[in-house]
Amino acid sequence: MSGHRPVPPSAAKGRHFLQIPGPTNVPDRVLRAMAKPVIDHRGPEFAELGRSVLERLKPIFRTKGHVLVFSGSGTSAWEAALVNTLAPSDRVLMVETGQFAVLWREMATRFGLEIDSIPTDWRRGVDPNAVEQRLKQDTRHTIKAVCVVHNETSTGAASRIGLIRKAMDAAKHPALLLIDAVSSLGSIDVRHDEWGVDVSVSCSQKGLMLPPGIGLNAVSEKALAVSKAGGSRRSFLDWQPMLKANADGFFATTPATNLLYALEEALAMFEEEGIDNVYARHDRLAEATRRAVAAWGLENLCLESKDYSSVLTAVLMPDGHNADAFRKLILDRFNMSLGMGLGKITGKVFRIGHIGEMNDLTLAGTLAGIEMGLDIAGIPHQRGGVDAALRYLAETSRPSD
Amino acid sequence: MSGHRPVPPSAAKGRHFLQIPGPTNVPDRVLRAMAKPVIDHRGPEFAELGRSVLERLKPIFRTKGHVLVFSGSGTSAWEAALVNTLAPSDRVLMVETGQFAVLWREMATRFGLEIDSIPTDWRRGVDPNAVEQRLKQDTRHTIKAVCVVHNETSTGAASRIGLIRKAMDAAKHPALLLIDAVSSLGSIDVRHDEWGVDVSVSCSQKGLMLPPGIGLNAVSEKALAVSKAGGSRRSFLDWQPMLKANADGFFATTPATNLLYALEEALAMFEEEGIDNVYARHDRLAEATRRAVAAWGLENLCLESKDYSSVLTAVLMPDGHNADAFRKLILDRFNMSLGMGLGKITGKVFRIGHIGEMNDLTLAGTLAGIEMGLDIAGIPHQRGGVDAALRYLAETSRPSD
Amino acid sequence: MSGHRPVPPSAAKGRHFLQIPGPTNVPDRVLRAMAKPVIDHRGPEFAELGRSVLERLKPIFRTKGHVLVFSGSGTSAWEAALVNTLAPSDRVLMVETGQFAVLWREMATRFGLEIDSIPTDWRRGVDPNAVEQRLKQDTRHTIKAVCVVHNETSTGAASRIGLIRKAMDAAKHPALLLIDAVSSLGSIDVRHDEWGVDVSVSCSQKGLMLPPGIGLNAVSEKALAVSKAGGSRRSFLDWQPMLKANADGFFATTPATNLLYALEEALAMFEEEGIDNVYARHDRLAEATRRAVAAWGLENLCLESKDYSSVLTAVLMPDGHNADAFRKLILDRFNMSLGMGLGKITGKVFRIGHIGEMNDLTLAGTLAGIEMGLDIAGIPHQRGGVDAALRYLAETSRPSD
Amino acid sequence: MSGHRPVPPSAAKGRHFLQIPGPTNVPDRVLRAMAKPVIDHRGPEFAELGRSVLERLKPIFRTKGHVLVFSGSGTSAWEAALVNTLAPSDRVLMVETGQFAVLWREMATRFGLEIDSIPTDWRRGVDPNAVEQRLKQDTRHTIKAVCVVHNETSTGAASRIGLIRKAMDAAKHPALLLIDAVSSLGSIDVRHDEWGVDVSVSCSQKGLMLPPGIGLNAVSEKALAVSKAGGSRRSFLDWQPMLKANADGFFATTPATNLLYALEEALAMFEEEGIDNVYARHDRLAEATRRAVAAWGLENLCLESKDYSSVLTAVLMPDGHNADAFRKLILDRFNMSLGMGLGKITGKVFRIGHIGEMNDLTLAGTLAGIEMGLDIAGIPHQRGGVDAALRYLAETSRPSD
Repeated sequence: MSGHRPVPPSAAKGRHFLQIPGPTNVPDRVLRAMAKPVIDHRGPEFAELGRSVLERLKPIFRTKGHVLVFSGSGTSAWEAALVNTLAPSDRVLMVETGQFAVLWREMATRFGLEIDSIPTDWRRGVDPNAVEQRLKQDTRHTIKAVCVVHNETSTGAASRIGLIRKAMDAAKHPALLLIDAVSSLGSIDVRHDEWGVDVSVSCSQKGLMLPPGIGLNAVSEKALAVSKAGGSRRSFLDWQPMLKANADGFFATTPATNLLYALEEALAMFEEEGIDNVYARHDRLAEATRRAVAAWGLENLCLESKDYSSVLTAVLMPDGHNADAFRKLILDRFNMSLGMGLGKITGKVFRIGHIGEMNDLTLAGTLAGIEMGLDIAGIPHQRGGVDAALRYLAETSRPSD
Repeated sequence: MSGHRPVPPSAAKGRHFLQIPGPTNVPDRVLRAMAKPVIDHRGPEFAELGRSVLERLKPIFRTKGHVLVFSGSGTSAWEAALVNTLAPSDRVLMVETGQFAVLWREMATRFGLEIDSIPTDWRRGVDPNAVEQRLKQDTRHTIKAVCVVHNETSTGAASRIGLIRKAMDAAKHPALLLIDAVSSLGSIDVRHDEWGVDVSVSCSQKGLMLPPGIGLNAVSEKALAVSKAGGSRRSFLDWQPMLKANADGFFATTPATNLLYALEEALAMFEEEGIDNVYARHDRLAEATRRAVAAWGLENLCLESKDYSSVLTAVLMPDGHNADAFRKLILDRFNMSLGMGLGKITGKVFRIGHIGEMNDLTLAGTLAGIEMGLDIAGIPHQRGGVDAALRYLAETSRPSD
Repeated sequence: MSGHRPVPPSAAKGRHFLQIPGPTNVPDRVLRAMAKPVIDHRGPEFAELGRSVLERLKPIFRTKGHVLVFSGSGTSAWEAALVNTLAPSDRVLMVETGQFAVLWREMATRFGLEIDSIPTDWRRGVDPNAVEQRLKQDTRHTIKAVCVVHNETSTGAASRIGLIRKAMDAAKHPALLLIDAVSSLGSIDVRHDEWGVDVSVSCSQKGLMLPPGIGLNAVSEKALAVSKAGGSRRSFLDWQPMLKANADGFFATTPATNLLYALEEALAMFEEEGIDNVYARHDRLAEATRRAVAAWGLENLCLESKDYSSVLTAVLMPDGHNADAFRKLILDRFNMSLGMGLGKITGKVFRIGHIGEMNDLTLAGTLAGIEMGLDIAGIPHQRGGVDAALRYLAETSRPSD
Repeated sequence: MSGHRPVPPSAAKGRHFLQIPGPTNVPDRVLRAMAKPVIDHRGPEFAELGRSVLERLKPIFRTKGHVLVFSGSGTSAWEAALVNTLAPSDRVLMVETGQFAVLWREMATRFGLEIDSIPTDWRRGVDPNAVEQRLKQDTRHTIKAVCVVHNETSTGAASRIGLIRKAMDAAKHPALLLIDAVSSLGSIDVRHDEWGVDVSVSCSQKGLMLPPGIGLNAVSEKALAVSKAGGSRRSFLDWQPMLKANADGFFATTPATNLLYALEEALAMFEEEGIDNVYARHDRLAEATRRAVAAWGLENLCLESKDYSSVLTAVLMPDGHNADAFRKLILDRFNMSLGMGLGKITGKVFRIGHIGEMNDLTLAGTLAGIEMGLDIAGIPHQRGGVDAALRYLAETSRPSD
């Protein structure tokens, strides 16, 4: 629509396959909802919208507590979690599961937190035993928070937060539990209350199937109490004025109204499908993807099945082949975006997102693009990945009721 | 959006694959263009729109003559062709290539025309020799028009209009040549001027990638002259007042403005891709589809390669299996619509549309849905259809320049 | 969005006021509904849509009978009414209330009907007595139909169809009653069943607040019976195959699916507001408009209050001033489209549409544009038109419940 | 679209008039642009989008320097300005021009800044002399920044930033100059470079005519240098990683892609109209509004014409009348939102926004709604406000070239 930029090269290429692990493909009905005219953010119609989305977000986190919605990205939601609950010099325990864990740690460092870091090989989830050991060593309870990434979007390994909670309980440690649920929320089960999570951090553009622009915090009473008494200097991301305004359906600062329209529509879609059905769909698409990867003879970055992520699958490139060159070829030939390797695995993996508005046929198209790309790029592999996925999908397909 | 109907069952099923041979998948940018506010159909802004679309449609028909745009369906465009050029009792030669040829013939009968019909087995295009023979027999030139379907959407067989023109010339017969270019326009090459076509009939929802609601006629000077002197009683579909209004960019009756917005956007997409590239894309997707069908061991309704259609492929069901039950299963399981068998082949074939907004990955998804459906339905077939298609697509894939 | 046309001059001019008496301003929620992806017109989801709109249109016509929806304009719906019920040489009685009556008569002539025409001065509705007299003279009942325009969009005079029915009954004449409800449907009360109308003709872009592209017929059992037995040669607009397909929610030819989406949304809006409230709103806006016209010292083309139209007001220009120059100035200065004078009153009147998505403030803007235009153009008038309208609107304003 | 909320009461009320001073009415073409599918924020198509908007924003700020775009509200952009340039205990000079100045000061306090505050009566802009005096007293240059609100959205008084720069220069004071250009950007002239502004803070939902969700900073080289060396703890809002990513058209964290689509479209509209024409349009609409207010005999909160804002007009309610009750009546009767009084003038003023997608007729509708509201509410006033505005608009109307 702009007179200044040339037509994007994809104009003649048909529908784009956005198979990065977020932003995900946004349903067209969500896009249309977002195109509604802006309304007065202090008027009665807005109050209904605000109350609707704030209330209906709770089941997605499986919480009866508070969910806060900020204009911002997932990064801002990370920051909100830290600055509301932790003060400079506070000690936190983090587990380096991958690049997003690294980035969150860097953020914590910037806010003056002291980090105890548990390393990993970036090919697995958090080891609850390791957490338990560290916490037990912290007999004086100087660790104020445990920060873990629920689904590590850079590696395709998920951590079992329930076991981490058990580890914390076993260590009888009072630290807060903060989780990055950025790519897990709406994708795989997040049980904020049951798992005793204090802050779940998420955002709009992953499992919620929205455009980016909204950051989310689900917050426990314990975290709220900590926040009232302390935390870091903050203003825009402060929970207190936001919660006060939210009580009437309003926001402390001008909200991103049109993204709230989109959110309301996406929440309606979750309610229509049923959240357990959403998760089952993602699980099934993920398993089909892994079968394709195995059939190609390629290696899943995530080593053990207990850590497999239903959000994305990161695939290791055979030696001597660059993942980014491969991704570029796929984009050029098949109008599909795959996720790049991040941080220390740049160029070594590509990531396949399989959440959001996905069904059997869009997954089939996705895997077909990869299989053809492997062929064209001359990357050593066996054929039959798509076929293996289709067999699994056909076997597990069920009629609608 | 309506409060009265339940949420459609496909709400939880991800993106719909609309793989009937029209209406085809409409690009989202076309849908957004269609959502622009209505303007005064007698004002200067409209005149620019009208001139733009009327002029830019011509290259799609490969004509320098007139293209007329009516509010209506392809059926109304058929009717416009007949009532503007033929009077009751006029004799026309038609070839029964399939159900759409049958329907056009029925329409002609309703307008009192006398029909000479050449039968076929519904598995091939028009035989130019047969046309030539009939015309040669008509030494008194009582046949006023030859009406043929360019691409028979019910069977997936295309006719070679250039050879039919040669046959008419060889017979030295002055009949008008009217073609149904409903599913061919924008899908495969239509050469209105070069082939000496007098009326090319088409509409919006096939190769043009628009929603239904617009009927089209491209008209030769010869047809125009006939129209001025005669034809049948008519009003809404009369060419003369329409052409008069079109001269200034306006329409004789209130036009479907928003579909013209959509048309303008679709024409821009044709210009960006290049019409020959559009056709080459359709040819390639069609060949991949046929390879899948062959690999499955299923039979293409269209018997000979010279008649193969790049618009759609009609697939014969093995004996004892009903195509509509199969289509229903595919819709239920995979949220994909396939074309039904029409007329005398109801239940015996399903049709795969492969035009419009299609690329390699959406075709892969389409074929994957069929292959899984064959498996689930227990229809005798060999695996490997998708694989055969992917091999062909990969082999013939080229980098964008 | 097209790369070929310059940005329309109104790009920098803010929201357009489309105050022609149709197409009317389309609510943005209707435009968004129209932008939904196309679905299979032979599938189960479509059947629900089809049934929904066909059923929910009936209360708008206040009929329990059939409503038919065609792809086409209002002109095609006029034609459908004529060709389904009348045969060449049939005699019909028409009343020339204005330009649309003239055009409908011309259409009737083209289909070979013989017309008895009652003239008027184009400043009033149909005189029921005149109809009664003519019918009484037709003792042999050679007149097969009475065709009248309910709301004459060219003059702003409405006819009282109930009185015309009484006149026909008083004359004990069996002719069919066909009415043009093009601009009255959804704008002012149309009582198809109560008034004994046989065919009510309408379309999408007036009171229904849709883009153009749909023609409508509401049809009595009597008209249906006549249609089965006779009528003119026809195909696309034939009622019988359409009604047969409609029984299952489908259409005889490919329907304009996206306009049906829009229709469904507009029908939801009618149901939300309540049709009587819609009419009351239009009546009030029309009265405010007339008060403005009177305050300006200008003359309403419609002479008597019993004929006043709540759809539009046609205003006579003072001698020596051309309405089209005035309209052009208004469009240029204020980005508002007013209706032109049609036929023999071209240049002599401008028409103000006040139906569709209109409220007090958009009417105020409309009248303000006219008052400023009168001032700038130097057209003799008194100030105070807007003020008179605002006083009336304020006096009659009521809180929402 | 949601199944859970009742239809908003405005559904039957026609087009909403969003006449708060932001969010403003968003052009429908901007809303449609925002509905485009999300793309990979790390891909080549995004890079073009990113470069386009970052470059084309510069002329709106009249800067050759850097403009930063954050996901967030205007509040986050305030925060970015503070935390990038100032450290806890730094002293800043602020002028309390109204509620937004108060809120910015509160934010500064939360970040540990020490505030020198110059009070006002909330009815005028910043007094450059007062700034000069304070700075001259600060002989040791302990004041690190002067923070002023360019256009005080709570009062409708604009400050002359050029004069403040002169005052700072006259005082030979090295403090940074930070301005809140939230409602001025794109509304009235902002001359970032010429006025020597170090940080201009703005956002999307005011003069830029976008939905909320984007915060903006334009930054001088001096501010950048300060930022590199110091500032407060920060992460999400840190300029450095953002500028580094921006160099290639990307963003440091996932950007609000769809709001960038909207931004690109809005920038195209600015380029089409010409930014000086935009400002002239706003000036003219503002003057018309003030004439209406004066004719009603009501009082503009802003006392002196040198401070008049072309963005909004705040109107004092006569004693004994509550502005919020009046606003509620207007919303209920006329579907128009007016701005509420904020902070210490709550209930005492209502604010009329006259920027964004506004033209003569939408302003006329706006003023008509207020005049009718005054009448219905029984608020003492003289009639004739709309009339005075229309006279002025007609007198100053010019044909388009």
